Amino acid sequence: VVEQFTESVSFDWRLWPYDIQGSIAHARMLGRQGIITREEARKIIQGLKEIARDIRAGRLAPRAELEDVHMNIEAALVERIGPVGGKLHTARSRNDQVALDLRLYLRDELEGFTALLKGLLQGLLQQAQMHRHTPMPGYTHLQRAQPVLLAHHLLAYGWMFLRDLERLRLLKERLDVLPLGACALAGTSLPIEPRQVAQELGFSRVSENSMDAVSDRDFVVEFLCWASILAMHLSRLAEELVLWSTQEFGFLELPDAFATGSSIMPQKKNPDVAELVRARTARVYGALMGALTMLKALPLSYNRDLQEDKPLLFDAVDTLKASLQVMAQMLPALKFRPERLLQAAQEDYSTATDMAEYLAERGLPFREAHKVVGQAVLKALRAGKPLQALTLKELKALCPLFEQDVYQRLSPQASVRAKRSRGSSSPQEVARQLRALRQALRRKW
Amino acid sequence: VVEQFTESVSFDWRLWPYDIQGSIAHARMLGRQGIITREEARKIIQGLKEIARDIRAGRLAPRAELEDVHMNIEAALVERIGPVGGKLHTARSRNDQVALDLRLYLRDELEGFTALLKGLLQGLLQQAQMHRHTPMPGYTHLQRAQPVLLAHHLLAYGWMFLRDLERLRLLKERLDVLPLGACALAGTSLPIEPRQVAQELGFSRVSENSMDAVSDRDFVVEFLCWASILAMHLSRLAEELVLWSTQEFGFLELPDAFATGSSIMPQKKNPDVAELVRARTARVYGALMGALTMLKALPLSYNRDLQEDKPLLFDAVDTLKASLQVMAQMLPALKFRPERLLQAAQEDYSTATDMAEYLAERGLPFREAHKVVGQAVLKALRAGKPLQALTLKELKALCPLFEQDVYQRLSPQASVRAKRSRGSSSPQEVARQLRALRQALRRKW
Amino acid sequence: VVEQFTESVSFDWRLWPYDIQGSIAHARMLGRQGIITREEARKIIQGLKEIARDIRAGRLAPRAELEDVHMNIEAALVERIGPVGGKLHTARSRNDQVALDLRLYLRDELEGFTALLKGLLQGLLQQAQMHRHTPMPGYTHLQRAQPVLLAHHLLAYGWMFLRDLERLRLLKERLDVLPLGACALAGTSLPIEPRQVAQELGFSRVSENSMDAVSDRDFVVEFLCWASILAMHLSRLAEELVLWSTQEFGFLELPDAFATGSSIMPQKKNPDVAELVRARTARVYGALMGALTMLKALPLSYNRDLQEDKPLLFDAVDTLKASLQVMAQMLPALKFRPERLLQAAQEDYSTATDMAEYLAERGLPFREAHKVVGQAVLKALRAGKPLQALTLKELKALCPLFEQDVYQRLSPQASVRAKRSRGSSSPQEVARQLRALRQALRRKW
Amino acid sequence: VVEQFTESVSFDWRLWPYDIQGSIAHARMLGRQGIITREEARKIIQGLKEIARDIRAGRLAPRAELEDVHMNIEAALVERIGPVGGKLHTARSRNDQVALDLRLYLRDELEGFTALLKGLLQGLLQQAQMHRHTPMPGYTHLQRAQPVLLAHHLLAYGWMFLRDLERLRLLKERLDVLPLGACALAGTSLPIEPRQVAQELGFSRVSENSMDAVSDRDFVVEFLCWASILAMHLSRLAEELVLWSTQEFGFLELPDAFATGSSIMPQKKNPDVAELVRARTARVYGALMGALTMLKALPLSYNRDLQEDKPLLFDAVDTLKASLQVMAQMLPALKFRPERLLQAAQEDYSTATDMAEYLAERGLPFREAHKVVGQAVLKALRAGKPLQALTLKELKALCPLFEQDVYQRLSPQASVRAKRSRGSSSPQEVARQLRALRQALRRKW
Repeated sequence: VVEQFTESVSFDWRLWPYDIQGSIAHARMLGRQGIITREEARKIIQGLKEIARDIRAGRLAPRAELEDVHMNIEAALVERIGPVGGKLHTARSRNDQVALDLRLYLRDELEGFTALLKGLLQGLLQQAQMHRHTPMPGYTHLQRAQPVLLAHHLLAYGWMFLRDLERLRLLKERLDVLPLGACALAGTSLPIEPRQVAQELGFSRVSENSMDAVSDRDFVVEFLCWASILAMHLSRLAEELVLWSTQEFGFLELPDAFATGSSIMPQKKNPDVAELVRARTARVYGALMGALTMLKALPLSYNRDLQEDKPLLFDAVDTLKASLQVMAQMLPALKFRPERLLQAAQEDYSTATDMAEYLAERGLPFREAHKVVGQAVLKALRAGKPLQALTLKELKALCPLFEQDVYQRLSPQASVRAKRSRGSSSPQEVARQLRALRQALRRKW
Repeated sequence: VVEQFTESVSFDWRLWPYDIQGSIAHARMLGRQGIITREEARKIIQGLKEIARDIRAGRLAPRAELEDVHMNIEAALVERIGPVGGKLHTARSRNDQVALDLRLYLRDELEGFTALLKGLLQGLLQQAQMHRHTPMPGYTHLQRAQPVLLAHHLLAYGWMFLRDLERLRLLKERLDVLPLGACALAGTSLPIEPRQVAQELGFSRVSENSMDAVSDRDFVVEFLCWASILAMHLSRLAEELVLWSTQEFGFLELPDAFATGSSIMPQKKNPDVAELVRARTARVYGALMGALTMLKALPLSYNRDLQEDKPLLFDAVDTLKASLQVMAQMLPALKFRPERLLQAAQEDYSTATDMAEYLAERGLPFREAHKVVGQAVLKALRAGKPLQALTLKELKALCPLFEQDVYQRLSPQASVRAKRSRGSSSPQEVARQLRALRQALRRKW
Repeated sequence: VVEQFTESVSFDWRLWPYDIQGSIAHARMLGRQGIITREEARKIIQGLKEIARDIRAGRLAPRAELEDVHMNIEAALVERIGPVGGKLHTARSRNDQVALDLRLYLRDELEGFTALLKGLLQGLLQQAQMHRHTPMPGYTHLQRAQPVLLAHHLLAYGWMFLRDLERLRLLKERLDVLPLGACALAGTSLPIEPRQVAQELGFSRVSENSMDAVSDRDFVVEFLCWASILAMHLSRLAEELVLWSTQEFGFLELPDAFATGSSIMPQKKNPDVAELVRARTARVYGALMGALTMLKALPLSYNRDLQEDKPLLFDAVDTLKASLQVMAQMLPALKFRPERLLQAAQEDYSTATDMAEYLAERGLPFREAHKVVGQAVLKALRAGKPLQALTLKELKALCPLFEQDVYQRLSPQASVRAKRSRGSSSPQEVARQLRALRQALRRKW
Repeated sequence: VVEQFTESVSFDWRLWPYDIQGSIAHARMLGRQGIITREEARKIIQGLKEIARDIRAGRLAPRAELEDVHMNIEAALVERIGPVGGKLHTARSRNDQVALDLRLYLRDELEGFTALLKGLLQGLLQQAQMHRHTPMPGYTHLQRAQPVLLAHHLLAYGWMFLRDLERLRLLKERLDVLPLGACALAGTSLPIEPRQVAQELGFSRVSENSMDAVSDRDFVVEFLCWASILAMHLSRLAEELVLWSTQEFGFLELPDAFATGSSIMPQKKNPDVAELVRARTARVYGALMGALTMLKALPLSYNRDLQEDKPLLFDAVDTLKASLQVMAQMLPALKFRPERLLQAAQEDYSTATDMAEYLAERGLPFREAHKVVGQAVLKALRAGKPLQALTLKELKALCPLFEQDVYQRLSPQASVRAKRSRGSSSPQEVARQLRALRQALRRKW
């Protein structure tokens, strides 16, 4: 029971490539520093490489009674090259070893996330490019407020994802510290040279304090924070896809591959993928809350509690990767319905603000312009017709500043064209955003 | 009931200085751009400045029926300067206004946190400096493992807090975007110039997408993530202070000002401050979880839900500020008991690792050295004496490599002095850490 | 700084009526047991009653330097009746006193919640009663699936809230334990009689273990769990109100009092109340997570950390009470649009399932019936007409089992009328649910 | 990618016994009601039983392309008995089917938890029985406060676990509702009889509302709330085991089987099991937060999001079961050190309260008694001797009420013996608690 309760190899086995990579670098340094002989180092390195080959080929599987990935690999090494394998343990403990493995693993995953996020952004830009002239209602409080361009709405997510990408780069910098050399907690009297190991493994910094090195899991929590914000963004986009593909909104046709049907209602397309993306946000939040709870009030230095960082981290990584992958594929495949979007934007007086700006440009104070337009909308509402169907005479009765040219402001297209401010929903600004995001994607991440 | 349910001025009133600051910059820009006359702008700005003075002097208090800080200030303005006050509303909505206020507010708080964190670190360095030669047991699993220096243990927190400081700088960069100009959600057709506003308010970037500008609360979540990690660090330190001030550990005497006594047991000192710091971590975690929940699956753009970011944010800010303040004052006032720390480090064979390294330096493979030392410890244990009380004859019986000089390795002081590796608990490395952290504190944050 | 950091009277002052109530009962018992004289007890009780009157009349306000509600009241007592006031402290400590206060407070709040929940349910039943024959689309995956009655949809929430009411009753039972008599942690050698106190205060059980009595906060977490589930229910209902009041759904007109308008778009009604109800779920979840975090790994018995239960608890209580109040008032005031609901239910082939059941009743295996109906829907879809517009000939071409009477199954009204199973959306079952819930409300809660 | 993203059989396969159990009951009812023929029902039931046998024997494994446990079993059925297998789908959808499976599964697990909790309690009672006369320091703020009996301290956990057991019983009642018959969301026109199914499956109630039946996951959240409170209790106990097994406390020797050693420090015993129990609390909290997040603002009725309840639930179930198992085995195996506990209780003046009660019994007001005893402690402290070493003359100098018999109150043993109040730490009360808990365990849970 205890063995089963404490073993971790059932989940930490995915660290094996990093464990071997780290051990090779450690052994080479031990050899160079004369802590073990060069011949011993050579034997150990060769043994480790063979083990890697065997695992990759499916010839070596982990054993639960050996507890964790580290002991499994060490046992395999001793089995192959004899007692000299034990020397790999010199000036190292599992405490700093696992901290290293986890950093190497996460560094790799972050590269994967970079590619996935770029892919997602590209899919989004593709749709935005296609719909850079498609008007739709812009919402506040989920009520139609003013016309915007579909591209503008989509690009709002573009900027969110770009922030995720920027934060991802910061994560990489923060991860870039070698914890090896801390040994159990206090360092060692042996003449090790962690900088050599760091260089071989591509770390630019070495941990400054051995106790911190073995007990620090900030990088795990930082990742989970990042992941939670990204998952939150995805949940917002997923929610909108669910809404837009309802019969009520009807803005969107989900591609068949990304929806499930009903044997009985062929017209029904359930947005299962979007729903699951939305739901899996919960897993990522849960992992973050778990990691923070686990670390709360934990004294220094290494405590076995830290083992629990892995199931939480791995679950969040896997969940988020899958969501990004499927969203990156689904986004460019979405079929929007420009005519429904336009129609929705034409209804409901959402160019009232434009009418007010028209009056303001002609000198009416804003609060008064609002009042006049409110009366115009009310009039149109009662007559059951759109704003632009009010006659000039009717408008002039409300305010003499109205002229014929006001009608040029009252279509959704005109409304967005009239926008001038930076970041607004005008076609020019949307084009600028597209260029800016494309350029951003070309940067080195 | 509804008014009371939806009002926010009971908590957002603390934003008033930022609301006025933002409005002044907005009015000046409107004037410069000719959207309102320069005279109108002047009047508005003067009115706002008077309002600020009156609030500061306690002559103007918020009214709940005016819902929020923005309406309160606008109403006060119109009351003072007449209908022209309404023109301040031109090309702005509460949606972008509150996003601005919140960024200005948080920017100020981040400066405060910078100072608080530096103060905390200084207090810590003071203690570490004082105890750079005080040995104590180093713990893993809360079991004594190897001797370390108290300074080394304290400095582990130093590096944690330095990371918090570094992350804080990143937060400031991420906050540095002006959302004003987004209006309700879609920008405006008026010739506003957000860059002018940004420059006046000290922002280096302007939001790229108006819908994102009004619905983005990443910066709130990022802050709460940062706050949660820092609170977690504080909870770990607080836990150790609680442990160390128990009768059992006895490592620490809490200064009277930071402990509560008992009328009946004058010797009893309850570590209330440390306990509350530990407990308040919970509030910060709760705020983070709340903010993530609030944002989950929220469609674009502004939704009233976003109002709830403020109670969560303010509570976390206040809680964390108070904890940092009190910890920064308590840390340098702590009275450690070097003799108890040393005594603890002398008991319990925690220099066994040093004995093993001694044998390894003389050529014994590490795993074998472990075995020999294990036998030595067992022998000492059974005889009820410390490791260094075994005779050389007894030791040689276990392994002929032992010589007289082994005894120089078996005191806690010798153990830490023998450490050589970077980041280890040797006096040199501790001195280096102290220098490095002091230097880091002198950087511009 | 420390005083300000550790004081709790700024938030625990709301406990004063319970603190006095508990103290009166304690004093009376001390007097009866002869631990203090009857005369001393009388003086203390009278002093406490006067203090209560003075606080109620605004003549006594708490002072922060007296730390908490208990010390404030004790100080006021001694001020009034002299040193004999100190005897109230006999056989009691703040540890068991605060546990009692909190239970008394929460017991009162639970009564309030009972009334609020019943009010909410009544409002819901009122709407359901009104719409017990209004068909609407029933949704799965937010896609129209089958017609249901609006009353049925609303009553689904009725059963959720009834479960909340049932769980509330369980909460009360669990709260019903007197912790007084535990003193600091170990009980006392004085001949106290907690059962007397329990009886006076209306508790049916007395704590069985003094250490548990002062360190147990299960009842706080249980409440927060209950509150989180209820808040989740409210967030689901609020989400639907937001959806239904969109222009796209158009199922609902929000009463003006529960929506905010726009000066410029008189037709726009923002569902602010529903949005805030939805958002405030986050606060309740955050409080739960906070309380769990605070208690994690806390050793026995009383720790100062426990003080933090109050801000979390009070915030959740206040938030949830406000949400329930406003929802209970808003629900009966909602104006549904039966014609829009019906129209939505008529579109989109949502009676396809009824057609399949029709065939199944005539002996076709279910999977095959599905296939046939799928073809029928496809045919109608392509012809751009509703299902019921297919001719009998067209239908018979797909399956000879179709007869004229199939058309009686294809309207939303017919669809719901045909339902027979318990808990289904038929008018009879809806009527039964209404009766059952009304009856449930009449029970003693 | 989509198939892999949406499949659930990789985790919901554990539901297969419940899926088959539910299907058998459903088929039998369909047959009895004449919805399918009795012969068809017989075939289906036999087919399902064979499938169960094959799965149990390892002859049938799930296929990911069949998405979930339901489709896997239905496909296997059709493969075996032909198209008639499809009739099992009559008057049922996966929406109500999965709700049923989950309730059946959880019902079984709750029985398992009942047994585990009882086992845990028994282990605890065994230790308490053994140490019903072992004094130890009782702590507040982790500072020694007053002597208690070790049994009393352990039994505080006993009452916590008994509350968990009581809440568990409530969970079972709340789970006891059959959701089958809701079909997709609206019920059915077929003459099904859910009460028959309920009876066969051992449910005493049938869902009252079909939309609630398919979208309700209260029972999952209720379970996770329960699990979180229990995990919190376990984390508190685990924390104390970690503390008590430090060299500093030294109250406890961990049995070898429940600790990990160090090859080099044979005296070192790491409390890994306790640490992992403490840490895994985080997983359970995370699952609760995940489930609440997932359900936040989810409209009715079934949404694919609900699929995510399972990974969260299963992870919490597995985690908590393992923790309970290992704790139930470890508790009775713990070796406490009565002499260390006693010694700790004798130091540090923790009988000062008894001395004050002594004076109070002789008529001194409590606050004054406190003052006198405070002076006595101070005197002893300064003289570096225990309280009982003060001479009667010294004591009388502080207060003439002291007599020779005071010394009988100043040992830890006397202190606990003198306690009289219900729930106090006296041997009688501890004996009463032991009896009460043993009796409680004999109840039917």
